[in-house]
Amino acid sequence: MHDRRFPASSLRLFASARSAGKTLSYGSHAYTVEETREEIFSELDLALFSAGADTSRRFGRLAAASGCVVVDNSSAFRMDGDVPLIVPEVNPDAARAHVGILANPNCSTAITLMGLYPLHRKFGLKRFFASTYQAVSGSGVEGMEELNNQILAWAGGGESAPATYPHPIAFNLIPHVDSFTPGGYTKEELKMLQESRKILGLPELAVSATCVRVPVMRAHSIAVNAEFEQPVDLEEARAAIRSFSGAELNDTPAENGYPTPLQYAGKFPCGVGRLRLDAAFPNGLALWIVGDQLLKGAALNAVQIAELLHQQGTLRIG
Amino acid sequence: MHDRRFPASSLRLFASARSAGKTLSYGSHAYTVEETREEIFSELDLALFSAGADTSRRFGRLAAASGCVVVDNSSAFRMDGDVPLIVPEVNPDAARAHVGILANPNCSTAITLMGLYPLHRKFGLKRFFASTYQAVSGSGVEGMEELNNQILAWAGGGESAPATYPHPIAFNLIPHVDSFTPGGYTKEELKMLQESRKILGLPELAVSATCVRVPVMRAHSIAVNAEFEQPVDLEEARAAIRSFSGAELNDTPAENGYPTPLQYAGKFPCGVGRLRLDAAFPNGLALWIVGDQLLKGAALNAVQIAELLHQQGTLRIG
Repeated sequence: MHDRRFPASSLRLFASARSAGKTLSYGSHAYTVEETREEIFSELDLALFSAGADTSRRFGRLAAASGCVVVDNSSAFRMDGDVPLIVPEVNPDAARAHVGILANPNCSTAITLMGLYPLHRKFGLKRFFASTYQAVSGSGVEGMEELNNQILAWAGGGESAPATYPHPIAFNLIPHVDSFTPGGYTKEELKMLQESRKILGLPELAVSATCVRVPVMRAHSIAVNAEFEQPVDLEEARAAIRSFSGAELNDTPAENGYPTPLQYAGKFPCGVGRLRLDAAFPNGLALWIVGDQLLKGAALNAVQIAELLHQQGTLRIG
Repeated sequence: MHDRRFPASSLRLFASARSAGKTLSYGSHAYTVEETREEIFSELDLALFSAGADTSRRFGRLAAASGCVVVDNSSAFRMDGDVPLIVPEVNPDAARAHVGILANPNCSTAITLMGLYPLHRKFGLKRFFASTYQAVSGSGVEGMEELNNQILAWAGGGESAPATYPHPIAFNLIPHVDSFTPGGYTKEELKMLQESRKILGLPELAVSATCVRVPVMRAHSIAVNAEFEQPVDLEEARAAIRSFSGAELNDTPAENGYPTPLQYAGKFPCGVGRLRLDAAFPNGLALWIVGDQLLKGAALNAVQIAELLHQQGTLRIG
């Protein structure tokens, strides 16, 4: 919010009773964290929820009924019929129908669509395969501390046992993000299917994802093979990505130019590279997309949704 | 060779002039490394080449002409029409036609086929997409030292600049293994296409790969989406992998059971898990394959080829 000079006239920070009383800074101001109570929402125009699906379920509908517009970062409402699931560069008009709650997509899905949407607009997306390389910050501070502790223990010749993850993550890969469903896909993998369909408005879109946790601190990467309705031209594909506001083309292999997570940690735009005509899809493209999942995959997209509502006139600020 | 009690009656170790005179051990014996010279091959029955494509090109044909059977671990001869490209569990009969040189496949390809071949035999492989997660040991000792140095520098609060790789590999991903070709694929990615076709005897097989270096020391992992000619049954697929000698089924998600690279470093069999009916392929399976690329992807497979020739009677040992 601060980085984007969000036009709030006042700001209040809420958390559980446990965190109430703590002080957090925003720009040069210090704010005291308050306890979240049902009564407070009638005093607020906008609430950005980011405390997990249980908390969102507890307060989300109630906040909206109190006249406070909720932008929710959890999975609680994403697939609800009356809740727009928004990536502002992709489906801004869907936000106009909101009835007080808007949902922020899953991080990997939002980042993947920053590469796929400009191509979809040009060639018509039909099907895609995605293999993710997800940073530990996707598991919160616990994930980062676990990788940090295991690396430091290794550097000292010792070991640090897994706690957040079911296996060691240092020097390892864990093909298991969120819990398993009966068909064998994880919930994280099914979100890529379900949320992509909803955001793109393509109920028949075919998607298969494999989601893997990797020993990277921040920024998710996704290898994508995508099939389109129309024949694909590589230069047109590059131009489509170049002219899309949410992504930047980073595709100069001769100079070792392609997105890496270290380059995109802390950056607003997602990087798209390794673009090539797909060897196994007639109308296909292979590509590699990287984005900071704490930004486009979470906080940035949430603030962008609020900015969008302000522009559209469905949110009064200040 | 030692772990598999390879039945050699004598062993000689060769390298460049620079390494000649060094001592290496094999079991409890110490051997002095000799310089590789053209004349030596007439004294040998079998040579295992593992010194890169240039060295293989310099000595390979000459060795074979001297009556020494060469099993070559480089890419030098893999696509030559008179050189069988062998994974012993997959295409042993192709080895019978050798004329003195047999090639060991690319590491990622060999490991991927350990999961796909038993499924191909059952359902008929038509097309697959592969995203790799390749360990730094695939770049030799330099890759392992670079990751090691960057991690230790980080643990000490410093930095260690990239030398082997074009970007830092610690806490990062590099979607660039081997050099780029004009179509945008890397050579490593095209090997997955070309070598899979040759090994499986499927000249029309469609393959698209994205090969990525990850901060893992040893063992490659591959996320695969595969399409088959026949309808796929999940229990039959599991049974096919279970009964295949080169792989083990490691697929108990309810108990967090799936292959990880730390589990498969130093192991002979490859691990296959995360098996599920593919959400984006009508006759498709998604799976996750892990194997030690220094073993099945290199040394183990080379020794297995020599054992195969011995069984087939085209190699006299001792």
